[in-house]
Amino acid sequence: MLTRAQVEQARERTAAALDAAGVALTSDERAAIEIVDFGLDVLDEIGLQLVVYVNTERVCAKEIVLFANQTCAEHRHPPFDGTPGKEETFRVRSGLVYLHVEGVPTPDPLAHPARVERGVYTAEREIVLRPGQQHTVPPDTLHWFQAGREGAIMSEFSTQSRDDLDVFTDPEIVRATIVAEVPPQPRP
Amino acid sequence: MLTRAQVEQARERTAAALDAAGVALTSDERAAIEIVDFGLDVLDEIGLQLVVYVNTERVCAKEIVLFANQTCAEHRHPPFDGTPGKEETFRVRSGLVYLHVEGVPTPDPLAHPARVERGVYTAEREIVLRPGQQHTVPPDTLHWFQAGREGAIMSEFSTQSRDDLDVFTDPEIVRATIVAEVPPQPRP
Repeated sequence: MLTRAQVEQARERTAAALDAAGVALTSDERAAIEIVDFGLDVLDEIGLQLVVYVNTERVCAKEIVLFANQTCAEHRHPPFDGTPGKEETFRVRSGLVYLHVEGVPTPDPLAHPARVERGVYTAEREIVLRPGQQHTVPPDTLHWFQAGREGAIMSEFSTQSRDDLDVFTDPEIVRATIVAEVPPQPRP
Repeated sequence: MLTRAQVEQARERTAAALDAAGVALTSDERAAIEIVDFGLDVLDEIGLQLVVYVNTERVCAKEIVLFANQTCAEHRHPPFDGTPGKEETFRVRSGLVYLHVEGVPTPDPLAHPARVERGVYTAEREIVLRPGQQHTVPPDTLHWFQAGREGAIMSEFSTQSRDDLDVFTDPEIVRATIVAEVPPQPRP
């Protein structure tokens, strides 16, 4: 669970990172930046920040912002409504991302052995993505990723996103962010 | 028809514009920048430049670079293979784009009456897109667009691209770029 102050602070950091990378947002998009802590209460370690540009029945595009060393927990996108599930391409715009995908051999011999202290991970193979590099993850395939020490900005091009259907390896994870409700202050 | 020198010069201008906007390309992407002159031989006036990031059976993403006042000629994406045709979202990253879409009322009272001297255009309604703004064009819907006086960079998020199936309003247009073959120079 995050407090409203934590959400707003994370949105400010996200907007500043996008601004520094030359990514323009409308004020509505700025206000709707999605902060995801996976219900684990360690946002800076395991979490991610999202701007959803478009999400129709056929196409989805997002900008993903990762803080320094932040990890998106391992998950897969299962089939739904007669589709094979979400297919997604990750393209790094700035920073460095260590992408781990089930069944993908490691093409980069310099791969940094990124590790996180907490969580459950089974996809061990690692792909290092630098600015301008990308990788497509097929539907229903386990994957997780972690930013390098300077954080990262990554575009995601995909079929429809149905985050509510994501299957996480760690049974403690809850995909929908819960924000602590603070009782309204009495008027003076 | 373009000469190889024209193609290479346009690629250089495109790569420089993307670099200035902080968009990173791999060297393979740099070498494969698509220069489209629609067979009209007036690239600076009617044409566009493309980097195709991904184009699978389900998802396509491109970066579109437009030179100053350059126009992408009016066309639509018809149904194919049992699909409704290509659905695409245009999102401006830098510069200004005047997007004309069949049947869309003009939401922006400040719309600049962008016009081109040559070509056949029927979609008169105009949407002005500034950095961070976007618009989704449904399948099989006539549309064309023109950059402002400083050029523009625009992301395109869509279903599969089948450029060979595009239907242009101007019957003179040929979508596939033809590059003049220069006979190889004799070795000294």
